[in-house]
Amino acid sequence: MVNETQHTCSASSSSKSDGGSSSGSESSKDSSRCSTPVLDADRHERLREKMRRRQDSGDNWFSLEFFPPRTANAAVNLISRFDRMGAGGPLFIDVTWHPAGDPGSDKETSSMIIANTAVNYCGLETILHMTCCNQTKDDITGHLQKAKRLGLKNIMALRGDPVGEEWEEEVDGFNYAVDLVKHIRNEFDDYFDICVAGYPKGHPDAESYEADLRYLKEKVSAGADFIITQLFFRSETFLKFMKDCQAIGITCPIIPGIFPIQGYHSLRQLVKLSKLEVPQEIKDVIEPIKDNDAAIRNYGVELAASMCRELLDSGMVHGLHFYTLNREVATTEVLKRLGIWKEDPRRPLPWAVSAHPKRRVEDVRPIFWASRPKSYIYRTQEWDDFPNGRWGNSSSPAFGELKDYYLFYLKSKSPREELLKMWGEELTGEESVFEVFTCYITGEPNKNGHKVTCMPWNDDPLATETNLLKEQLEKVNRRGILTINSQPNINGKPSTDPIVGWGPSGGYVFQKAYLEFFTSSEIVTALLKVLKKYELRVNYHIVNVKGQNITNAPDLQPNAVTWGIFPGREIIQPTVVDPVSFLSWKDEDFALWIEQWAKLYEEESPSRMIIQYIHDNYYLVNLVDNDFPLENCLWQVVDDTFELLN
Amino acid sequence: MVNETQHTCSASSSSKSDGGSSSGSESSKDSSRCSTPVLDADRHERLREKMRRRQDSGDNWFSLEFFPPRTANAAVNLISRFDRMGAGGPLFIDVTWHPAGDPGSDKETSSMIIANTAVNYCGLETILHMTCCNQTKDDITGHLQKAKRLGLKNIMALRGDPVGEEWEEEVDGFNYAVDLVKHIRNEFDDYFDICVAGYPKGHPDAESYEADLRYLKEKVSAGADFIITQLFFRSETFLKFMKDCQAIGITCPIIPGIFPIQGYHSLRQLVKLSKLEVPQEIKDVIEPIKDNDAAIRNYGVELAASMCRELLDSGMVHGLHFYTLNREVATTEVLKRLGIWKEDPRRPLPWAVSAHPKRRVEDVRPIFWASRPKSYIYRTQEWDDFPNGRWGNSSSPAFGELKDYYLFYLKSKSPREELLKMWGEELTGEESVFEVFTCYITGEPNKNGHKVTCMPWNDDPLATETNLLKEQLEKVNRRGILTINSQPNINGKPSTDPIVGWGPSGGYVFQKAYLEFFTSSEIVTALLKVLKKYELRVNYHIVNVKGQNITNAPDLQPNAVTWGIFPGREIIQPTVVDPVSFLSWKDEDFALWIEQWAKLYEEESPSRMIIQYIHDNYYLVNLVDNDFPLENCLWQVVDDTFELLN
Repeated sequence: MVNETQHTCSASSSSKSDGGSSSGSESSKDSSRCSTPVLDADRHERLREKMRRRQDSGDNWFSLEFFPPRTANAAVNLISRFDRMGAGGPLFIDVTWHPAGDPGSDKETSSMIIANTAVNYCGLETILHMTCCNQTKDDITGHLQKAKRLGLKNIMALRGDPVGEEWEEEVDGFNYAVDLVKHIRNEFDDYFDICVAGYPKGHPDAESYEADLRYLKEKVSAGADFIITQLFFRSETFLKFMKDCQAIGITCPIIPGIFPIQGYHSLRQLVKLSKLEVPQEIKDVIEPIKDNDAAIRNYGVELAASMCRELLDSGMVHGLHFYTLNREVATTEVLKRLGIWKEDPRRPLPWAVSAHPKRRVEDVRPIFWASRPKSYIYRTQEWDDFPNGRWGNSSSPAFGELKDYYLFYLKSKSPREELLKMWGEELTGEESVFEVFTCYITGEPNKNGHKVTCMPWNDDPLATETNLLKEQLEKVNRRGILTINSQPNINGKPSTDPIVGWGPSGGYVFQKAYLEFFTSSEIVTALLKVLKKYELRVNYHIVNVKGQNITNAPDLQPNAVTWGIFPGREIIQPTVVDPVSFLSWKDEDFALWIEQWAKLYEEESPSRMIIQYIHDNYYLVNLVDNDFPLENCLWQVVDDTFELLN
Repeated sequence: MVNETQHTCSASSSSKSDGGSSSGSESSKDSSRCSTPVLDADRHERLREKMRRRQDSGDNWFSLEFFPPRTANAAVNLISRFDRMGAGGPLFIDVTWHPAGDPGSDKETSSMIIANTAVNYCGLETILHMTCCNQTKDDITGHLQKAKRLGLKNIMALRGDPVGEEWEEEVDGFNYAVDLVKHIRNEFDDYFDICVAGYPKGHPDAESYEADLRYLKEKVSAGADFIITQLFFRSETFLKFMKDCQAIGITCPIIPGIFPIQGYHSLRQLVKLSKLEVPQEIKDVIEPIKDNDAAIRNYGVELAASMCRELLDSGMVHGLHFYTLNREVATTEVLKRLGIWKEDPRRPLPWAVSAHPKRRVEDVRPIFWASRPKSYIYRTQEWDDFPNGRWGNSSSPAFGELKDYYLFYLKSKSPREELLKMWGEELTGEESVFEVFTCYITGEPNKNGHKVTCMPWNDDPLATETNLLKEQLEKVNRRGILTINSQPNINGKPSTDPIVGWGPSGGYVFQKAYLEFFTSSEIVTALLKVLKKYELRVNYHIVNVKGQNITNAPDLQPNAVTWGIFPGREIIQPTVVDPVSFLSWKDEDFALWIEQWAKLYEEESPSRMIIQYIHDNYYLVNLVDNDFPLENCLWQVVDDTFELLN
């Protein structure tokens, strides 16, 4: 709706499917005999059902509006923001439609692709805005078909700004948002949830406030499921509007649009474009501090928080929609003050669930992509169905090639200079590579005083769970066992355990110890001798870049390494070590040496040749200790290997 | 082959898929990415592959021949024998073809139906004999199609006895076994494994021993996979025959047919019909003791065992085929002396796997049919595919109606008089029913001095595993909680545990405690109050004969109650409590009161009315304690219930 008057000041919100342990009795019907664990009722509900459920349970919630960024770099940052703000538990986010920015295209900055990324890669319930004026029916239908194909399920239907000063209705064209609502319902039946915009002060182009209300009712009657309002400055404005809506028979949810003032200029610009008037009492405060950004933001947070509190206290409002202007601080602060920012440590599964409807049943993944979930989703996006219950149920579908290592959502967040500082301006040998791995594990600065906060295989610092293994990991990395993935064994911890827990409460989670690393052929030779002693206990897969593969796995059977037992459910085993997909992972894993590390250096430079040497000669190894109730033996395996080498 | 000369002296052998822990690397290719755990390589191998694998590994094995019985009662007994002799681990059994007994019909005593029962209900690898002389191509094809439809995979191709004294070749007809072999290969390609008969002394109708060998070679060239021989009395006879076969280029396995002499008359009759001559040294021993059955049998066992030992010691023989004459003692005794009777307590799954090819992937079943596996197989025989990995994967297939409670393979082995002695000639009230249940649990005789060794819901005495719960079960049955199924909780016992273990070695098995019983509505009312305290911990389903259903299960989700974690495998969860199939089980379960118990008494008799009252008014209850790592709380639930009632 801000969008409907102007574009630069739209804001967004990231939504996350709700924690874990919603009671099964709330699950929707189509899940009842489904093979999925459906730990999370949200996973099968449409947005309007989630909204209704939250409202019925008297639960307050929020949503976040974002606009598409202008550059690819900004897109990478925005997606990190989705992940961070998604952690607070928004019911949904929405992405505005930017007609001037080729919004339906495949560009990494288009509205369509940003919304696609939010749904598929960040697992956020997402509304895609769409404007209709000056567009043909075919264009609109094409956009909607594409949105559906990408897994988007919700559309905010808007008119958009007419081009030029004088606007005239087109016969048979899309002249109003209601035309778009009707079109969506005609062409796509009930597939999409539709949201429309409401104007607490009336739309600036409307003949009157009353006429605008009647128009809003028309949009709802045409098939809209809920309303998000334009911003406003006083809670009374919204509450009056809501009562007026109800008086003329609008019964769907109406969500107030909240705009925390974040700066003098953004406010002025917004007000100008939206033709809203800023109340005198606000102007009086802001004018004297207009050059003090921090002061204005503090005031904005305070103002928004107190208005939100009034809205929630009225008992008429359960959800708040935030125009974030793509910024985090102010909105997060307001939400925290209101107590509705909920960082829920509970996870429905050990990995983040994608929000694409096709992936609803997905509940098994190979462990390899644990630190690169977006890459996994990307490489499996063409699959027709996703494994559930057992990995073996999938008929060995092919993984997509990951040719473009610079796909914007997989790009490293750090610029080249920073990576060089972390990973070494100049490498002097394999030892200096060991040093980088070790610093990443320990969190200690490298010899030039820089902390290593990411690696080609891990965008983020060490996970809390991996931290449990820190001491051992440090020891082995120093000696050239270059670990990229690991998990400790777990023998029946409560599913609510803050570190290793997942799934509904009342359950127990289990893990087999896992260790994955690169290492030299010398170490592999010794390791293989040692592994003979552990033949029945430890499964291994060892492969080099050429695909030479050594394993003791029975056939091509996957090995479940994470599973959970829950009250009244079938067993869930979300993570497996799968020998077949390990070979797809291997390609990606080895390529990251070159694409992310070697290419930081000049061709033919010694540093580059060291990485190239490792890439060409090292092996990728994974080890599973099957005896999960006993003490993890993998460290002993590694110790024995080093001893044999001495 | 005995069959080829006469019918009454054919014998059979029950084969069982091999224990549990065959190493995965032996599994056949088609299992490699299959969703089934394939704990047992045997499960996916054809008979000829199993034979080859056993031979390659230098493993000795045996097989058992049976003939179809004359009466339905004898069929019930024969099938119990299949179960008992199957426990010794035969590689296969075979069932002879009795042309005079309508062998391809649906009669409960036909060769076809007996073989069907062995495969589907007893889980035995089975060869069906088939004779071809005096039959049309269409008849034969019809029989083979039916055999295939029933899941039979192996045919013993025989000529059969010509009708009348003078036999003439029919033009275009089936004149020799080789015609049948060719026909099977023509019409069914490689679907069946084909066995043919060999005659160590030459077929009585053959021109010469040499001519008969050539004829045997023709049968093999036409597509036979292995040979079973007619019986013989000296190991040299067989070893010479085998060498002669090899000399003319017969390379397939040749299995000696062993006939342990079991009595004077059966030997005489056999010899007459097979036109074999009994060696003088045997006659010399037998004639003087011809009226002493026990002495003859002892001699027969000794003779067979020593001949078998010679065969095995020759290094040329790995498998022995026994003509059992449908009797257990002699053959079992020989096998035990040879040390190849292998009662392997290891189980691939907690329940016996059916040998039907369609059911190969099956690895999940509802717990309800634990004591009535044949009924479960019967009621699911029309399913197109079977759940594996998860019960929820099955799209809720319908259970067949079990209208005929006297299906021969489900019939009680005990006659009416015996059942009346166990369950009471006259019941005086519900209490006398409680008494019957209690005596069944304790193994103590009832007040008339009779032990209760079976119940309508359990054909056999209490299982070893249930014995663990004996004390508690006794207590609750005395008070009217009439238990019919239960299991203790198990928190990670080794998969090789002799009582609760199953699956490959090196794994861990788990169970949730389960209790299923009939009880009065008064007790149910109290129980429901008590269960409120255990809301999150205990799942319950309570239903009466009219289908009134009370449950706290989330949706219609199944609850896994038995599962196992194995090296290098996905999780296996072979037993679930499934709310949907519980309602199908309920019908069967309540009907057994009437069909097996009430109908023992006169209509309108007080005894019958007591059972009818229980049938009409009691509830069937199942309870699962989800907290498997803690002490089983179900006994506490029951104690609390009784306390509330006091």
